[in-house]
Amino acid sequence: MREVSIIGIGQTQVGEIWERSLRDLAVDAIRAALKDAHLERVDALYVGNMLSGECIAQQHLGVLIADWAGLGPIEAVKVEAADASGAAALRMGYLAVASGVHDYVLVCGVEKVTDVDAETANAAWSSAMDAEYEAFQGVTMPALAGLLMRRYMHEFGVAREDFAPFAVTAHANGANNPYAMFRSPITAEAYAKAGMVAEPISMFDAAPLCDGAAAVVLCPRERAADLSNKPVHIRASAVATDRLAVHSRRDPLFLQAAYLSAQKAYLQAGVSPQDVDLFELHDAFTILAAMSLEACGFAERGKAVHLAKEGGIACNGRIPISTMGGLKARGHPIGATGVYQIVELALQLRGEAGANQIDCRLGMAQSLGGSGATAITHILEA
Amino acid sequence: MREVSIIGIGQTQVGEIWERSLRDLAVDAIRAALKDAHLERVDALYVGNMLSGECIAQQHLGVLIADWAGLGPIEAVKVEAADASGAAALRMGYLAVASGVHDYVLVCGVEKVTDVDAETANAAWSSAMDAEYEAFQGVTMPALAGLLMRRYMHEFGVAREDFAPFAVTAHANGANNPYAMFRSPITAEAYAKAGMVAEPISMFDAAPLCDGAAAVVLCPRERAADLSNKPVHIRASAVATDRLAVHSRRDPLFLQAAYLSAQKAYLQAGVSPQDVDLFELHDAFTILAAMSLEACGFAERGKAVHLAKEGGIACNGRIPISTMGGLKARGHPIGATGVYQIVELALQLRGEAGANQIDCRLGMAQSLGGSGATAITHILEA
Repeated sequence: MREVSIIGIGQTQVGEIWERSLRDLAVDAIRAALKDAHLERVDALYVGNMLSGECIAQQHLGVLIADWAGLGPIEAVKVEAADASGAAALRMGYLAVASGVHDYVLVCGVEKVTDVDAETANAAWSSAMDAEYEAFQGVTMPALAGLLMRRYMHEFGVAREDFAPFAVTAHANGANNPYAMFRSPITAEAYAKAGMVAEPISMFDAAPLCDGAAAVVLCPRERAADLSNKPVHIRASAVATDRLAVHSRRDPLFLQAAYLSAQKAYLQAGVSPQDVDLFELHDAFTILAAMSLEACGFAERGKAVHLAKEGGIACNGRIPISTMGGLKARGHPIGATGVYQIVELALQLRGEAGANQIDCRLGMAQSLGGSGATAITHILEA
Repeated sequence: MREVSIIGIGQTQVGEIWERSLRDLAVDAIRAALKDAHLERVDALYVGNMLSGECIAQQHLGVLIADWAGLGPIEAVKVEAADASGAAALRMGYLAVASGVHDYVLVCGVEKVTDVDAETANAAWSSAMDAEYEAFQGVTMPALAGLLMRRYMHEFGVAREDFAPFAVTAHANGANNPYAMFRSPITAEAYAKAGMVAEPISMFDAAPLCDGAAAVVLCPRERAADLSNKPVHIRASAVATDRLAVHSRRDPLFLQAAYLSAQKAYLQAGVSPQDVDLFELHDAFTILAAMSLEACGFAERGKAVHLAKEGGIACNGRIPISTMGGLKARGHPIGATGVYQIVELALQLRGEAGANQIDCRLGMAQSLGGSGATAITHILEA
């Protein structure tokens, strides 16, 4: 099995990008990644996307994007794992290179949800949950997160305001990311006063659904140094799953899949949480940020909010998270998000993160599908 | 890179299966495949599906099915390549085992389209085409096939009736397949009189959209003999793409992706078309059956209808196709079809194809996405 490296990265502006179609966004990111890798051709393309069928009546994205990017007749396939679709596409690209089947592989995450109204997009996003046992009851993703947050507050005796540091940190970091959807810092006071989406989930607890595309180029590690003077190596790639419906889980407040995929990743990389310099986690909701930190060994159960309050998640903290804004401030273009995390982590490891640069050598990215039923963890090294 | 074998197969009845949900169908096929492989657990699950978002408001099928089958917390991801989604899932499973990342992998193709009306399902299927440049004009998959068939008739001087042997052969073979949707033989006269769907595509030129699930269990070849007394070996796995929109192709009557993926597969297996004993091809429409035979080297351009007329595609012919009914008579449960082809090919290679048994050692399966923009070819050996 070959080791795999990242030799090119690309991303588009995240937001309500009405002037670019899905295929345009994907090709913009792909061109940037190919340019960064000094390559014109690759052997295969794996696309991460969740909602193109529901939002733009277009499936078959593998070939659509390969065609539009002028990459045909290469292998091109779409991968879907709800919000973790981008990370799942990276996983497939990793397998393709690790196996020796392909040498140069593009992974592109893309989502375009603003061609439909927000209600339609949110309803489509609900298909990340169990359609028959959760969504059927009328619960949406924010509502489900609200139930989890309320329970967490009850179990661990914390207040809604204790989650403020997750939103404040994300927005502070997003302010320095030119690709982020939201570039305005917010205060704890603003968080406290924010309008409710699904109580206790406020506008500042929930990441925005939006458009965007990100791409990376992979190759075998032994060739990476020849092609890039700043290759980033994939030290671990791991996927785990949990029960789909939250009510089926033994402990709804513990992200078992996040825990298992992180453990597998630590084992593969031969590292522990102490070795990880930064953690791009799946903060689709502040409650998920807290639960991710706990599942992955960065905080004890019920203590993530304290870690956050003490500044432990800031860029100069013990374990910086959402260093380019996270899902909250960079935005959550669903199927693209997992690849954005990888692009941002690579920027950090290459020392190209600008004002948010962290002194780092080893970083972790974890993408969750839905309420955490799928967890995909990658550990990258400079 | 490890060689990969199939040690378990399973399938459900194909048809309008109103009494089973998508997850039920998938689990039925998975249980059958696991039982056949004498296994209870696997390391990963790759699901092929196209339309669950549009037809049952459910995405995130990897974890849904892993959960429902009691296979969690394994890696589970969905793969989509329109009609070739099942074959694409097999491709990902192949990469996972070939790479050494996983030893035992389940691949499941599943589709459930009859929970919505036929018009909605057909509209959803249209997302296999280019939504902005083909589907936007109102063209459906049968209409697009009609345009291709009309052009083929004009270019090569053949009549609509010349396509009859494809339908007659498929229905004759389907009559002996207990899992097939249609088990009644048809005559050339019935074909000639069939009602039009999208002229010249008649009811007997078009495969039915329907429900079904099929599954296979993969493992490294060196372990296959220990687990199965009838392992089937994957000698080649290849994917190629073409321009998505038919009007962008240099020659709309030549399936370039089918040609390229077949050539790659022949090269990998070290064989030529003459060595292939049977060919499970993508006869979503009779015209696609003809074009597939020509693209893969079994007939010259414009001559596939003559091969069919001379009996060359029958079970006792030179190159038997659709030996268990094909998409036409077994049915076309879109994202499941690519896995059905593999299950049926494995049945032939294991000598378990019943009345339709062919004396064979090497077989090929090819799945097309949409009008042939994606082509995925696997060559299997007993």
